[in-house]
Amino acid sequence: MNKPESHRFSSDEIHRYCSEVFQTFGVPEDDAELAADVLRLADLRGIDSHGVARMKAYHSLLAANSLNPKPKLKIVRETPSTATVDGDNGLGLVVGPKANQIAMEKAENVGTGWVAICNTNHFGIAGYYVLEALKRDMIGWSMTNTTRIMAPLWGADRMLGTNPLAIAFPGKNEPPVVIDLATTSAAFGKVEIAIRTNTNLPQGWAIDKNGNPTTDPHEMVDGGAMLPLGSTREQGGHKGYCLGAMVDLLCGPLSGANWGPFTPPFTIEHAQPERSVGKGLGHFFGAMKIGAFIDPDEFKTQVDDWIQTMRSTRPVPGTDGPLIPGDPERESEKNRKTEGIPLVEAVIQDLQEISAATGVRLPQ
Amino acid sequence: MNKPESHRFSSDEIHRYCSEVFQTFGVPEDDAELAADVLRLADLRGIDSHGVARMKAYHSLLAANSLNPKPKLKIVRETPSTATVDGDNGLGLVVGPKANQIAMEKAENVGTGWVAICNTNHFGIAGYYVLEALKRDMIGWSMTNTTRIMAPLWGADRMLGTNPLAIAFPGKNEPPVVIDLATTSAAFGKVEIAIRTNTNLPQGWAIDKNGNPTTDPHEMVDGGAMLPLGSTREQGGHKGYCLGAMVDLLCGPLSGANWGPFTPPFTIEHAQPERSVGKGLGHFFGAMKIGAFIDPDEFKTQVDDWIQTMRSTRPVPGTDGPLIPGDPERESEKNRKTEGIPLVEAVIQDLQEISAATGVRLPQ
Repeated sequence: MNKPESHRFSSDEIHRYCSEVFQTFGVPEDDAELAADVLRLADLRGIDSHGVARMKAYHSLLAANSLNPKPKLKIVRETPSTATVDGDNGLGLVVGPKANQIAMEKAENVGTGWVAICNTNHFGIAGYYVLEALKRDMIGWSMTNTTRIMAPLWGADRMLGTNPLAIAFPGKNEPPVVIDLATTSAAFGKVEIAIRTNTNLPQGWAIDKNGNPTTDPHEMVDGGAMLPLGSTREQGGHKGYCLGAMVDLLCGPLSGANWGPFTPPFTIEHAQPERSVGKGLGHFFGAMKIGAFIDPDEFKTQVDDWIQTMRSTRPVPGTDGPLIPGDPERESEKNRKTEGIPLVEAVIQDLQEISAATGVRLPQ
Repeated sequence: MNKPESHRFSSDEIHRYCSEVFQTFGVPEDDAELAADVLRLADLRGIDSHGVARMKAYHSLLAANSLNPKPKLKIVRETPSTATVDGDNGLGLVVGPKANQIAMEKAENVGTGWVAICNTNHFGIAGYYVLEALKRDMIGWSMTNTTRIMAPLWGADRMLGTNPLAIAFPGKNEPPVVIDLATTSAAFGKVEIAIRTNTNLPQGWAIDKNGNPTTDPHEMVDGGAMLPLGSTREQGGHKGYCLGAMVDLLCGPLSGANWGPFTPPFTIEHAQPERSVGKGLGHFFGAMKIGAFIDPDEFKTQVDDWIQTMRSTRPVPGTDGPLIPGDPERESEKNRKTEGIPLVEAVIQDLQEISAATGVRLPQ
């Protein structure tokens, strides 16, 4: 599929812009900078749907007083290796990093830390959190449930979100293995691109409003649903559904957040769920100190060997052979740090509207 | 695909048989009973490839002195929430349950417990371990790496195992949600069935020895490989590869076990890997006390609601609607507890050979 035209902006300027917009709504400077860190990283790593492109949604939620700009995180239950945190309806971009910090502190003390969070909102890219853990020689885990978009296998309704799962492992001389995946067979952002470029979807991505397979992106958007990873029973669609369920149960019922079809919508324009079964969205973070299991240097040496071994696999004809999880994002980050972040016209227009409303200067 | 003809045997008789065979090799009675528990559960839950059908392989390994019948598990590193265990080259069916026990004890003490195990062998069904955790009001996690059979996306060689992942969540009045999945798009056992029944494989399951897609099960067996969940790049095959990698890195490098293409073969007939990068196979277990996060009764009430909500999804035309993870296995267990375990002729012949060699009376 062709990507629409774009213009490039410096990632520091995008960071400055996001932080300032958040601050106009009373988000404290430190929190605004943290939130901007998460968004900038998404843009640098090429996950365009989760970076500054989301400012429109965050802006509308803050403007409608739907989010608390100054949340006070509260630990509602705790053991040496766990905590349950109420995010006080703050930005997920602020609540997430702070809750992840609690997980890492617990790991420092007792080997691992596991934190379930309720009453929070969309937290950006799952990969941000596990990259933070790497800085402390920890294996980080991160999950969030999200607004419903996916049908369970054999179901015709949107019942689960894209429910991503991320985990990362440090190498020694090699870069880390960074796994960050949605449990749908494809990202919803790709459906939006198909609509913009007037192309069809591949088989196995979506169903229409009656539950029948469709390759028409409009039919998916018009009351249809995305399919779980694996798509069909024969291809393992029950497994993608299971993974989505796992993320939902850890983020929702375990933290006291909403789950399944009752997760709150991302934007204020969308209909509210028919009932509330908890507080806000939910996240789940884990941190495992590598030294709690094995000598960290020995571990990283093995990870380097693992990476080199996988790279040495004979390529499938017509390909360059297997990638290492995290390769495409790393490549993007390297490029975009020097070349800037490409933003499409629709996103630039959104930013112009936000600037008009807030007085914050556009990114240069 | 048609299943071959079978005869039914009582699950208790299968349990007695397995335990006695293990004991003829000097496995202590308690350990032999434990190992037989794991195998019986696989047969009851309908995972035929992982039950008594595997006795031939276990028997040949024990007969060849390739396994230690009396392993002494050793904790080689430990924190309040973690342990790394050396399984002393015991049966995975014995090492696994004991290491899982350590994880649950740690969860009892500090909220969660996480145990990485090296120097172990195939541990049966991943689901066994997470069902044990349910008995203690814990969410159990279980993973193992396995003999190589799967190609990473865009790779033409077998580099990873089926690397299963299991996790379970208790309901209150509803049965638990039990997730147990291999990270390949299909189980290798289904390829064996296709060969026996002379049928083709669906697209997306396998590649031939050159890395090209194939639907011929013989081409997969003859130097080809299984594909990761998702199969192709377009359908999310990189995600299945990532999940297989995650399980491998947690079970291998983190415990000090072999990993990737260097995991030991399941039977003595198969070629040894070209090099050794650790000790034996690896497992990874987790146990999370529900009460460490939220009131267990509140959690289970929400899980009941979750289950009922998913069941209420409109069905896709031609289906009965979504299942709950664990439904098929529960149905099988109910049926087989009363009707007995169906064993195909090939398995019965294996058991006859083992009986001839050990003097253990066949299951009735």
